[in-house]
Amino acid sequence: MPDVIAYAIDSPTGRYEKTTIRRRVPGPTEVYFEIAYAGICHSDIHTARGEWGKTLYPLVPGHEIAGVITEVGSEVTEFAVGDRVGVGCFVDSCRECEMCEAGEENFCLSRTHGTVGTYNAIGRDGEPTAGGYSQGITVEQAYLMRVPDEMSLEHAAPLMCAGITTYSPLKHWGAGPGKRVAVLGLGGLGHMGVQFAAAMGADTVVLGRTLAKREDGLKLGASDYISTQDADAMKKLRGSFDIILSTISDGVELDVLLGLLRPYGVIINLGLPSDGNATVNLGRLINGNKVIAGSNIGGIRETQEMLDFCADHDIRPIIEIIPANQINEAYDNVVASKVRYRYVIDNATLAD
Amino acid sequence: MPDVIAYAIDSPTGRYEKTTIRRRVPGPTEVYFEIAYAGICHSDIHTARGEWGKTLYPLVPGHEIAGVITEVGSEVTEFAVGDRVGVGCFVDSCRECEMCEAGEENFCLSRTHGTVGTYNAIGRDGEPTAGGYSQGITVEQAYLMRVPDEMSLEHAAPLMCAGITTYSPLKHWGAGPGKRVAVLGLGGLGHMGVQFAAAMGADTVVLGRTLAKREDGLKLGASDYISTQDADAMKKLRGSFDIILSTISDGVELDVLLGLLRPYGVIINLGLPSDGNATVNLGRLINGNKVIAGSNIGGIRETQEMLDFCADHDIRPIIEIIPANQINEAYDNVVASKVRYRYVIDNATLAD
Repeated sequence: MPDVIAYAIDSPTGRYEKTTIRRRVPGPTEVYFEIAYAGICHSDIHTARGEWGKTLYPLVPGHEIAGVITEVGSEVTEFAVGDRVGVGCFVDSCRECEMCEAGEENFCLSRTHGTVGTYNAIGRDGEPTAGGYSQGITVEQAYLMRVPDEMSLEHAAPLMCAGITTYSPLKHWGAGPGKRVAVLGLGGLGHMGVQFAAAMGADTVVLGRTLAKREDGLKLGASDYISTQDADAMKKLRGSFDIILSTISDGVELDVLLGLLRPYGVIINLGLPSDGNATVNLGRLINGNKVIAGSNIGGIRETQEMLDFCADHDIRPIIEIIPANQINEAYDNVVASKVRYRYVIDNATLAD
Repeated sequence: MPDVIAYAIDSPTGRYEKTTIRRRVPGPTEVYFEIAYAGICHSDIHTARGEWGKTLYPLVPGHEIAGVITEVGSEVTEFAVGDRVGVGCFVDSCRECEMCEAGEENFCLSRTHGTVGTYNAIGRDGEPTAGGYSQGITVEQAYLMRVPDEMSLEHAAPLMCAGITTYSPLKHWGAGPGKRVAVLGLGGLGHMGVQFAAAMGADTVVLGRTLAKREDGLKLGASDYISTQDADAMKKLRGSFDIILSTISDGVELDVLLGLLRPYGVIINLGLPSDGNATVNLGRLINGNKVIAGSNIGGIRETQEMLDFCADHDIRPIIEIIPANQINEAYDNVVASKVRYRYVIDNATLAD
C-alpha cells in the first residue's frame, strides 16, 4: 500500500496484463485487507468485454473477494487486524436512504451516492473502483462480510456473488420443506442454488441441457436431474414446480418454464441474455397466477447470513484455483461452460 | 324450467338472437335461480368472436350473474328459496384436489374434472355450459356466492368477475397502508381496482391513456390521475410504485412499467393482448428484484370475501343497465372503450 499489483484489461478485445494500482490509505472507518483469493464471475467477463454497456478501462474486475485485514482506520469498531473478511459486488452506498437503512444497500435509492460497484464504478473519492484481481483493497467497514471460522478463504470468495445471488431469492420466495424447486443450469450459480434449495428443505431438481453434470447435481443435493432436451421427461414435469431458479443467460424460454410451474409458481430469473430481452406469453402467466421475478445479489446483512448458513450446512462452492496469469484462458473456459464450477484466482500469484 | 329464454350467438361474426335453452332440474345439492342481471365482460366478447381459441356455438355467455333462488335440491344445506346469490366464471371443479380443498377451485388440478367455465365448457352432465344471458341457471351450491343484503343485484353481478379479478391480486400482493399502487387503465376492471386499492389503504394513482376519465378516477379514490402520454409526468413517477395493476389488453409496455416500480415492486398483469405475447427486458426485471405476476379471478371463498368487503366499504361498480336486445351494440361500445364502466343486462327484458 498504496501501490499494489493487479491484473488489468484495457479494451474489450484486450488480454489481462500485470500492472500496479493505487489503493487509499484507510480512512477512519475503513479497513485495508490483503486479498487471498478472488473468484471469476461471468459478470467480470461481460464487463471486461464491453458486453454490458460502458466499461471504464483499464479495468480490474473481481467482486468475489476474500482475505485478511492488515490495517484498520482509527474509528473502525467492527473489525480488527487479522480478521478474515470478504467483499462482494459493491463497496459503498448512500447509507441514509430507506433501502440502505433496511440493509438493502444493493438497491440504494440515492441519485448522487447510489450503490458503488466494487469495480467499473466511481467511488466517493472520485476515482474509478478496482476489484479483486489485485493484492489488496481498502473498503468501508459497513460493506465487509466476516468469513466464518470453519470456511477457507478460497471457498468464501465465490460466495460473495454466486452465493448471495442464489441464496437471497430462494429464501425470499420460500424454498423449503414441501416445496419443489427446479434449478435451470448447473454452472457457477446453479451449483450453489442446488445446495441452498436442498439445504432449505426443498425437493430440488436440476434441469440441464445435457446430462453431463448429472452426477455432480445429485451429489450437491438434487433428487433428480433432467435434460431439457428430453421432451418426454420435460412433459412429465409440467405443473410440478413451486420455484424455478433460472441461472442461464441465453436461450431462456419463459413460456416453457411457465408450463412447468404449479399455480402460484415463480420463475426466479438471474440470467441476462445478450440483448436483455425475453418474450413471455401473458396467457400462460395469468392462468395459475404465475410469477416471473428478477433478483440481483443481496444486501450486506443477508450476505453475512448466507455465509453463516453455508458454515452451518456445510455448503461450499466447487472451485478450481488458478494462478493470475491464467485469467485469459479461464475466461474462455467460462464462456465455453468448461469450468466446474468456479475459477478462483490465487492472489499470491499476482506478483509472480 | 327446464326451458328458459336466452340470447345466443352462433358464429364469430354473428349477432345475438333470442332463443331457448334447456336447464337441468336441480340435483340433490344444486339450486336453480332466476337471473336478474348479467354483466357484460370483455371476455364474453373475445369468446363470442372466437378470439380466444375454440368457441362452442351456439354460445350463451355471461359469467357475472346475480339473481334469486327459486328451487333447491333435497340436500342443499347452504341456501334456501328466496336467497339472493351470484355465480362467477366457473360452476364446477373436481372438489377433491389440493387446489379445490384450499378454496382455489379456479386452479383445479384434475385432468378429468377440472374447473368448468360458466359458459363455453362441458359440464359433468356432458352438455355445454351456458351463462348468464338467460333467464335462469342450475348450479351446484358450492359454486354460489351470497349477495350481501345491502347490495343490489345489478351491482352484485359485475363483481363476480371484474370484482374478484382485481380484489384477489391486490390483496395477495399486499396493497395497503404505506403502499403506492398504480392502476393502468380505467375500464371495467380498472374502476374496481382503484376502489379496492384505495379502500385497502394504499395511495392509489390511475394511469390512463388520456385524462378523459380523470374526474371519475379521483371520485373512485385515486389521489392522482396521470396520462401515460405525458412524458414529463411519467418521468416523475419513475421508481415510485409498489404495485402496478395493469388492466389493459393491448399495448402493455412492460419495460416502461418496470421503470415505474420501486425495488421489489410488482406488475400485476390482468390483460391479454391478441397474440398473448409481451416482451420484457430481463435486466430491468433483475435490477431491483422486480416482479411480473399474472392473476386470474379467484376462488369461491375469496369471491365471497370480496363481496363482503364491498358491502363493508361501500364499493360498487358503476354500471349502465341495458335491455337484452342491445347486447350487440353494447359489445361494439365495450371494444371502443365507450362504456362507463360496465354494461349489465336486465334479464327481465330477455322475454321482450
